[in-house]
Amino acid sequence: MNSKLAVFPTSAEINPQGHLAIGGVDMVELAAHFGTPLYVFDEATLRARCREFKREFVSRYGNTAVVYAGKAFLHGALAVILRDEGLGLDVVSAGELHIAINAGFPPGDIYFHGNNKSRDELTLALRHNVGRIVVDNMNELDMLIRLAEEGGYTPKIFFRIMPGVDAHTHGHLTTGAADSKFGIPLSRAEEAVAKAMASAPLKLVGLHFHIGSMVGEHQPYLAAMDRVLGFSAEMTRKYGFDLQELDIGGGFGVQYTLDSPMPEVSFFAERLTGHLSAHYKSLNQPLPQLIIEPGRAVVAQAGVALYTAGTIKEVGGRLYVAVDGGMADNIRPPLYDARYEVLSAGKADVAEADEVTVVGRYCETGDILIKDTRVAPVVAGDILAVPVCGAYCLPMASNYNAALRPAVVMVGDGSARLIRRRESLEDLTHCDSI
Amino acid sequence: MNSKLAVFPTSAEINPQGHLAIGGVDMVELAAHFGTPLYVFDEATLRARCREFKREFVSRYGNTAVVYAGKAFLHGALAVILRDEGLGLDVVSAGELHIAINAGFPPGDIYFHGNNKSRDELTLALRHNVGRIVVDNMNELDMLIRLAEEGGYTPKIFFRIMPGVDAHTHGHLTTGAADSKFGIPLSRAEEAVAKAMASAPLKLVGLHFHIGSMVGEHQPYLAAMDRVLGFSAEMTRKYGFDLQELDIGGGFGVQYTLDSPMPEVSFFAERLTGHLSAHYKSLNQPLPQLIIEPGRAVVAQAGVALYTAGTIKEVGGRLYVAVDGGMADNIRPPLYDARYEVLSAGKADVAEADEVTVVGRYCETGDILIKDTRVAPVVAGDILAVPVCGAYCLPMASNYNAALRPAVVMVGDGSARLIRRRESLEDLTHCDSI
Repeated sequence: MNSKLAVFPTSAEINPQGHLAIGGVDMVELAAHFGTPLYVFDEATLRARCREFKREFVSRYGNTAVVYAGKAFLHGALAVILRDEGLGLDVVSAGELHIAINAGFPPGDIYFHGNNKSRDELTLALRHNVGRIVVDNMNELDMLIRLAEEGGYTPKIFFRIMPGVDAHTHGHLTTGAADSKFGIPLSRAEEAVAKAMASAPLKLVGLHFHIGSMVGEHQPYLAAMDRVLGFSAEMTRKYGFDLQELDIGGGFGVQYTLDSPMPEVSFFAERLTGHLSAHYKSLNQPLPQLIIEPGRAVVAQAGVALYTAGTIKEVGGRLYVAVDGGMADNIRPPLYDARYEVLSAGKADVAEADEVTVVGRYCETGDILIKDTRVAPVVAGDILAVPVCGAYCLPMASNYNAALRPAVVMVGDGSARLIRRRESLEDLTHCDSI
Repeated sequence: MNSKLAVFPTSAEINPQGHLAIGGVDMVELAAHFGTPLYVFDEATLRARCREFKREFVSRYGNTAVVYAGKAFLHGALAVILRDEGLGLDVVSAGELHIAINAGFPPGDIYFHGNNKSRDELTLALRHNVGRIVVDNMNELDMLIRLAEEGGYTPKIFFRIMPGVDAHTHGHLTTGAADSKFGIPLSRAEEAVAKAMASAPLKLVGLHFHIGSMVGEHQPYLAAMDRVLGFSAEMTRKYGFDLQELDIGGGFGVQYTLDSPMPEVSFFAERLTGHLSAHYKSLNQPLPQLIIEPGRAVVAQAGVALYTAGTIKEVGGRLYVAVDGGMADNIRPPLYDARYEVLSAGKADVAEADEVTVVGRYCETGDILIKDTRVAPVVAGDILAVPVCGAYCLPMASNYNAALRPAVVMVGDGSARLIRRRESLEDLTHCDSI
């Protein structure tokens, strides 16, 4: 067995043909059928990750809601699975709300986030009666009070608090530090609470923070929790605020490569719920609902990108393997210095001899998918499978170099269904007039 | 007059209302009409830049072809202007070829580039009888010979040579260095030339190199030219190769901010053509056609992005102004540390007092458009105009956070026409099935 399978979907295996199979489907055959680049999601992994989050948190802290952060990847077929598994859903725009509603996701389980919601978006959220609106700032609070009063709505809201805690992650990904575009600084939050509690239509039921993405430690969560709980207690004393729900965001790190392990869900669950329970036990107060918002941690490992190798060239002692995708479908390597593993789908049981650099087909030097990695001896036409591509690849995909965005397939129980067709040449000019 | 107008399109002015006007069109009114984010292209600047390149090069070196690099931004309306101005067009994919052909661009003036062209793409290029196919590597050469023989085609080709010259630009943008995914290393190029010259169908008429993007010096071009011309002379001696066309690529740097000037086109024209003329004069040989491939340098300054200011908050001594776009329509700041100026379109004649950080609306800390810049005192609803957004913004635009990609307008002579409508919510799920 190839050790790389550890970062592939849970159902990944090497079939009798020596090919990578996911959900019982042969990836070489799948690529031949649908073409490449192809994104494959494993339904079993998606459901397993939903269940793992529910199990690990709820078993320790009964009143936990697991809310999936749609920005990692959102699709109607995924929304159906999330609903099925009893998760809530975060959206951050009218577009994400549209996708969710369209897929029949219950609006009451939708949490509307965003640092710069427009009037139209807030109106839409009110009209759909979404579960919670997570208010980011004073401008938004004022706008929301006005819209609620005018329309006769009584939305339940959270405030996003900027806890001033550094998540020790990539600079693009830390969000809870003292100087950030997100949320209300603790020093200004009292004004917001006072105003919301004095507003007739708004129901302030909770507080939210989010410290960042790809977090690998529990301490930043605990530090942020302490600050927000301290603030909440002060608001209770001063204004009688009742913290019914505490939304501690997501950001749970995901393992991308064999040499970059991340803590298990149970690790975070144990420490975060333990801390919260102890806090309330010491106060002898009832526990608020705990809300966690994993995005990447639910979908990343479920997704695999399949590419076809084309040009192979040796330059300056480095073997370059060019594939038929790259930065247009996965911009994470140049954007975040993200690293990946790669497996030759048709040679999954072959020893990995070649050190190669896998590059994309786009006219840009930064279009390198994986630098200096190992793969079975590769020839043009081989199908290369890149694991942990379920999050933040497709949502950030572009038509750079007039590339057609990839088809997406869901696999499970030995069968595959196309959930997104590949774009066509006609789609490229769909909105254009000359 | 606001000094920032220097980096806006040539037709930019402050109109009697104190608003930014481009092509005689008031940008505040335009934003009100089409909504924001809105990308505006100035036809006068596009044509002026085409003419500047032709004038500055052709006046010094008569046999120059100016070929626009479509990857910077490609649209049918632009293709029509390019054709009108007598430019050729670089494409790098079936998608770009489709857009060009669809707009009636003459295939004979199209140059087909790419480091990993597929068999289908080469077949398409042959069928359309494009002007030149720029062969990147030996795999491609073999495939092209086969396809040409099978289909009875006689394509004119270049080889892309890797000259081993460092362009001294951003690491993502240098392409001519000795270790790069592009082209044939000089050490391997003889084999390619010998093979092409021995092939009946292929007509090897030239050599190409491209040293990178945002190049601000002429020396790397001269160094690369010397290496490629030296190689060419050797091939002439050994195989009777006739260098009819020398394609030196593009990469001419563009000024994005007031404090980052770049050389004029005339600066490059003088030094590059002078060097080439002197080289051939010393040899007493006829001059090859010179081909230059500016992309960014033609379209960047012609494009302006308009945003509406929303959330404004002061955090840790920094004033954050959030706009209704950001990394989904312009990923250059987080991807390349790109810097921009900003002008308040409705307050173009107001003193710029506020130091602000302009951030986007996307759920990501890296979504900062412009850090620590100056703008006239800003309130929610103000229209902010970001100049030099004509290149590498729209082509890399995504639907991140389920954002709708922007509308695009062409302005000139006091009127505006929509050349790309804004995406709709329905477009988001256009290819999806649940």
